[in-house]
Amino acid sequence: MKKINTAPLGGMQELLPNLQSEFDRFKNGFLNEFHAHGFQSIETPTIDRTEILLAKAGGDTEKQIYKVVKTTEDAESADQALRFDHTVPLARYVVEHESDLAFPFKVTQIGRNFRGERPQKGRYREFYQCDVDIIGRNSLPIYYDAEVIATLVEAVKILPLSNLVVRVSNRKLLGGLISSLELEGNAEDIFSIIDHAEKVPREKTISALQELGLNEEDIVKITTFMNISGSIDEVRPQLEALDCSNEQFKTGVIELTEVMKLLELKIGQNDSIQVEADMLIVRGLDYYTGTVFETFANGHREIGSLCSGGRYENLASNYTDQKFPGVGGSIGLTRLFWILQNYQLINLAEAKPIDVCVIPFSNNELALSEELANDLRKTEQKVDVIVSNKKLGDRLKYASKIANFATVIGENEAKSRKYELKNLETGEKETRSF
Amino acid sequence: MKKINTAPLGGMQELLPNLQSEFDRFKNGFLNEFHAHGFQSIETPTIDRTEILLAKAGGDTEKQIYKVVKTTEDAESADQALRFDHTVPLARYVVEHESDLAFPFKVTQIGRNFRGERPQKGRYREFYQCDVDIIGRNSLPIYYDAEVIATLVEAVKILPLSNLVVRVSNRKLLGGLISSLELEGNAEDIFSIIDHAEKVPREKTISALQELGLNEEDIVKITTFMNISGSIDEVRPQLEALDCSNEQFKTGVIELTEVMKLLELKIGQNDSIQVEADMLIVRGLDYYTGTVFETFANGHREIGSLCSGGRYENLASNYTDQKFPGVGGSIGLTRLFWILQNYQLINLAEAKPIDVCVIPFSNNELALSEELANDLRKTEQKVDVIVSNKKLGDRLKYASKIANFATVIGENEAKSRKYELKNLETGEKETRSF
Repeated sequence: MKKINTAPLGGMQELLPNLQSEFDRFKNGFLNEFHAHGFQSIETPTIDRTEILLAKAGGDTEKQIYKVVKTTEDAESADQALRFDHTVPLARYVVEHESDLAFPFKVTQIGRNFRGERPQKGRYREFYQCDVDIIGRNSLPIYYDAEVIATLVEAVKILPLSNLVVRVSNRKLLGGLISSLELEGNAEDIFSIIDHAEKVPREKTISALQELGLNEEDIVKITTFMNISGSIDEVRPQLEALDCSNEQFKTGVIELTEVMKLLELKIGQNDSIQVEADMLIVRGLDYYTGTVFETFANGHREIGSLCSGGRYENLASNYTDQKFPGVGGSIGLTRLFWILQNYQLINLAEAKPIDVCVIPFSNNELALSEELANDLRKTEQKVDVIVSNKKLGDRLKYASKIANFATVIGENEAKSRKYELKNLETGEKETRSF
Repeated sequence: MKKINTAPLGGMQELLPNLQSEFDRFKNGFLNEFHAHGFQSIETPTIDRTEILLAKAGGDTEKQIYKVVKTTEDAESADQALRFDHTVPLARYVVEHESDLAFPFKVTQIGRNFRGERPQKGRYREFYQCDVDIIGRNSLPIYYDAEVIATLVEAVKILPLSNLVVRVSNRKLLGGLISSLELEGNAEDIFSIIDHAEKVPREKTISALQELGLNEEDIVKITTFMNISGSIDEVRPQLEALDCSNEQFKTGVIELTEVMKLLELKIGQNDSIQVEADMLIVRGLDYYTGTVFETFANGHREIGSLCSGGRYENLASNYTDQKFPGVGGSIGLTRLFWILQNYQLINLAEAKPIDVCVIPFSNNELALSEELANDLRKTEQKVDVIVSNKKLGDRLKYASKIANFATVIGENEAKSRKYELKNLETGEKETRSF
């Protein structure tokens, strides 16, 4: 027969069941935390109008978007494409359903997005994003910036990583500083240089700033700014020492202070999470206008940010004149899961899919076995009844692959109304009654 | 500004948060039941090679499949398309990962599939299917036919529908009968006529059989066959009375009897579910080779089948010579949810997204409010803290839109360490301590 390639496409994550189970445990853990914080789930269609999806985008997005071909039967399916993030469909959703929503709208979207980009290790073309957003109508108190950060940080605590640190900044600070130095023309480049500063030697950052034509004094000011980090009480005097009288900068100081104080209230008491103001955090996208944050595991900085996001002035400016300020953040679970696998941080021992395998010795014990299985299921256990004409030994071998416990139900068990539950890991046995 | 159409595309189901919450409750309920029965979750990529997806398909599928356009950045993305069901990617998955799987492989897939078909009421172009399948290697005991049916029926019990009836048949019966009448050339048409018989007057079925050129005697035999239904003890003598000596037919009788007896064991004791053998059930697809079943709610037959499926001889014959017999079934949740909405069977009162809104009277009570919120979250409640500079009345109004309970934390509450929890539906109040 013709040999067909059955591997999944490059850039697609396809997991075996035991890994899938761990993946889902993280995904559901995030979702539970989001719900506990009052975020409501929505799902937007995977396919949308190209006009909607590309209203704001440009550059890479246009090169990566998967357009679909009009099908023979669906005359409307021209000019459609797969969503590449959750934010664009959310903007459409909020405008479309505005009159049915209560604002501030605390919303979570967990689903697959698509970018047909160049193959790169750990980058996926189909990937889960776990997003939370809070959307205001006309205005949105800064309290919600802290709420988004606290919620995401609580969520990533279920990952097998410790010593989390949340690094927070506010883009009004760097924006204001750049204005006060009259470097607006270089703003985009300066944001980008600081965004990458951690990944390159210090000299390279300075030479990059020199290449922009900045004078020594400005470079000192910018590098001094970049190096500011710590608690808000440590950071605030250093920011003030920059002596920047720009209004935007001042607003940035006020907002950062408020967000940091709120985070102290919300997660400050928790020893395992450290919250720091850090001027190196700028988030590449020009999309963000205020608070920005990233989260790292201190023992595994090489993993990169676990979750990140920020404040945006206007969610839906491409579709409406109505103003919807928002703040949001995201966990890139597909990439994160790949990294955790690579660092062998996924504990597969925990991930056996079945709790108990019930094995009827013969067909005579099938009814009793089904009864036991249904009883165990009522106690939220995952139960499989193994029926086959294979030898008992083979059936036990199959059970040990998929389950934590097994029990064989034979004539004796049926008579005595007692059965032995065997731990397939340790071999320990426990006698129970039906 | 240019007005952009923000409605979702035709054929896409986009729900408001309260409906989404009900949708998710069904979806998660199904999944829990599948897991309780030992099915393991997998997820296959949404995008796959067209060659894989269309290996078996033909006809409508080719007209409905969404192919994707090669992106600028991804040279590999030519000849790819969106999956239109879960079975085809499952076949690829089983062949690809065979050596890592334990057989019988009990697997569930819950996800979105895509068909760009003509617009029709209640038909979606993007739709959730909730599938269970059990795949054997070389052979698969008939026990698992009953296991798939019992699992799916347990799952649909969470729907707001009562008096469920599972109708079971076996395609070997009609297949064998057709052979014994030497009508193999008309097999496909006869299957199709019986598949539609319930939806048309009896005369139309008979005239359709006449149009095929069948003689009176054969028509009597076929219509007698199609009218057989009831318990296996009722049905078996009627099948035997057809006096069909064909081997395939006899195997069908044995298999149907065994599946019915097993179902009695598994779900027979449950009053709210009726299991019937019914020769009208044939399932249109030529894909199935043995057991077939559909499930209806007796009070709402017009809803159509809630879940259905059957046995197939060979899952992956297009990709390998290795034999993988399987049995599976599916719940078409997107369509089903649309119907339940239309019949006003979705109870939205249950679906408030937040359990408790905590409202700090002023910023002075914010810390205490956050503390209370975090405590309530530990008891698995969904809690939102409402912070804004709006009036208290406005904040309570917002709370009553999204939550079941609210509490205002002011100076008195902080001093007394007591707060009032108000039921936003009934107005009842309960005093609690921090």
